[in-house]
Amino acid sequence: MKGRAPQDPGDPRPEGGEGRASRRVTGAGEPTLWNAGGAEWLKGDGPSSDVVLSSRVRLARNFAGFRFVARCTKEERSQIARAAKAHALSGEVWHAGGVIWIDLNDTPEIERQVLVERHLISQQHAKGSEPRGVAISVPDERLSIMVNEEDHLRIQVIRAGLALEHAFAQSSQVDDAVEARADYAFSSRWGYLTACPTNVGTGIRVSVMLHLPGLKLTGEIEKVKRAAGAMNLAIRGFYGEGSEAIGDLFQVSNQTTLGKCEKDILAAFEREVIPRVIEYERVARRTLMEKRRLYLEDQLFRAVGALSNARLMKSDEAMQALSMVRLGVCLGFFPRMNLARVHELMLQTQPAHLQRLARKELDQAERRVERARVLREAFSA
Amino acid sequence: MKGRAPQDPGDPRPEGGEGRASRRVTGAGEPTLWNAGGAEWLKGDGPSSDVVLSSRVRLARNFAGFRFVARCTKEERSQIARAAKAHALSGEVWHAGGVIWIDLNDTPEIERQVLVERHLISQQHAKGSEPRGVAISVPDERLSIMVNEEDHLRIQVIRAGLALEHAFAQSSQVDDAVEARADYAFSSRWGYLTACPTNVGTGIRVSVMLHLPGLKLTGEIEKVKRAAGAMNLAIRGFYGEGSEAIGDLFQVSNQTTLGKCEKDILAAFEREVIPRVIEYERVARRTLMEKRRLYLEDQLFRAVGALSNARLMKSDEAMQALSMVRLGVCLGFFPRMNLARVHELMLQTQPAHLQRLARKELDQAERRVERARVLREAFSA
Repeated sequence: MKGRAPQDPGDPRPEGGEGRASRRVTGAGEPTLWNAGGAEWLKGDGPSSDVVLSSRVRLARNFAGFRFVARCTKEERSQIARAAKAHALSGEVWHAGGVIWIDLNDTPEIERQVLVERHLISQQHAKGSEPRGVAISVPDERLSIMVNEEDHLRIQVIRAGLALEHAFAQSSQVDDAVEARADYAFSSRWGYLTACPTNVGTGIRVSVMLHLPGLKLTGEIEKVKRAAGAMNLAIRGFYGEGSEAIGDLFQVSNQTTLGKCEKDILAAFEREVIPRVIEYERVARRTLMEKRRLYLEDQLFRAVGALSNARLMKSDEAMQALSMVRLGVCLGFFPRMNLARVHELMLQTQPAHLQRLARKELDQAERRVERARVLREAFSA
Repeated sequence: MKGRAPQDPGDPRPEGGEGRASRRVTGAGEPTLWNAGGAEWLKGDGPSSDVVLSSRVRLARNFAGFRFVARCTKEERSQIARAAKAHALSGEVWHAGGVIWIDLNDTPEIERQVLVERHLISQQHAKGSEPRGVAISVPDERLSIMVNEEDHLRIQVIRAGLALEHAFAQSSQVDDAVEARADYAFSSRWGYLTACPTNVGTGIRVSVMLHLPGLKLTGEIEKVKRAAGAMNLAIRGFYGEGSEAIGDLFQVSNQTTLGKCEKDILAAFEREVIPRVIEYERVARRTLMEKRRLYLEDQLFRAVGALSNARLMKSDEAMQALSMVRLGVCLGFFPRMNLARVHELMLQTQPAHLQRLARKELDQAERRVERARVLREAFSA
């Protein structure tokens, strides 16, 4: 994935008309993308899964010979989409399994929101109206490539637990496979060229999704957030930029890529920063277990009480209660529950997932009823 | 109970030394005063018991020939106590059953607070340090006579449900029986003389304890409170003057007695005012059942969820949750629960009752644990 001189991105074979590609499935069997618990990172069995939900590596790439997406005409976007599909849907890229291509212009709002809720596309990508799409590996949902989001390609790998090196390795393989077929916009001085200057250089962003209920309950979360801010890390909510920290979930990511190599970024992140936060969280949990056991149990069991009894539930409350259940599972409470099921419920109770499950549109009031019903069934069993 | 000219209250036989009487039990068997569910008004089977917990009539009386309590010496108080015991513990007064006399100077703080929590004595009476006591009918706890509270005698009758006439009849019988043996301070111009001018005249106060969760949930409670204020009714909390309205329980009482006869007060109260409030509450409950069923169920079942899962619970939260359970029982939810059990738990989770149950002093934090335990046992069965 290192620099070559810019050249044309080859001659992509068009597929479908005007950037509208039908869904294409490679690999055997039905894709299980839509099953709430399908994605590999949801299984909760990665390294340090008591604290780390998932690790994500994202590469921003642009084809040489095209303008950045924001500057493109609709026709140019269609050309980029065709190029992307030609180069990024090939067997070499997706050798691990099946892939589906989703033309977002051709996808109903609710299903686009399902993709957002699954962290497979950005809100910005879901909302657009120009030719754009996403390729997703199924059934594991580890790899996704957004086409015509802010950059021509956004290659994303999500893995369960603290697994940035694995995620990075896979994203590099994909990157190399695409680069073997097409030319990226690359400057020997600046590195990979991206639409947003903060991505120029390696074009890489790494982030981990942390579950920090212990620090929240002991009141130390603000201290940790300040420390992270001082280290130039961005802390966001479960749904990234602009989202609130719901369910004690925090997405921690690096802020700059220019002038740093991938290895430095990864090393600092995976071996120093994140393990330190993990240790803070584990100490907080031990403190709660040893010194504030009743307070802890009160929080955990009240959450189960609400989940198994409520008839109406807002999204934030559901996430907060599920956060307590997740903590309880990690600490050995709730033997009949497990992380995979908790994660599945975290997604399943999001607005679009709920509507998909109900097979109809639900307004906010109806979603609160449906959300409570889904959770009650899960917890009264 | 009508006026005679003042005269000496007779020559009471002293019992015990210096106002310190030992506990005396008449009637067969052990008194069940201390069983949380023992009192008759707790059984929840009186008229309009869906809304009215209890009806109370209280008569303020003073013996002729003694100063008001606040003006008395300790010796005078002892004399009053002896007179009260001689005249108010006689068989004619308590013919319905057993009676215990509790010398409050000789009673530990926790047991005095238990009496307050059971509405048998006032907080002021519990806190005093001079010779004083209370006679209580057992096991029904319908009748109690505070001696040397604000007045020489405070005769109180509590009945389950809306039963002011029954309560009034019993209080009158007791009043007549005492008056047959001793002379009250009475003025042909002013009526019964009492320490506080607001009680002068009939010396009667009537109140009902209302459970108004429906009006609370529909947001109409403030409107009803304003209307009651305009009718010169006092609305207080579960523990009377100065207490907050916890558990949606409101004590509604008349404010003045001077210049009105008992019949007028009772008629206005039992036949007009209270039935109107009861009807407001029932309409609110029907509205909730018919138009806001899910919201209602959410509130009811969340309360059960908290009661059956919390490990720490404050008194206010317990009362609020039990209020929802009481409402649920009245509306046909929770078939395994009943009003008597709900009322028992309302008392059993009060601070002094909790400590009595635990057979030791508990600080606030310990009470929260014990309260949660008692409730969890009751609701996880």
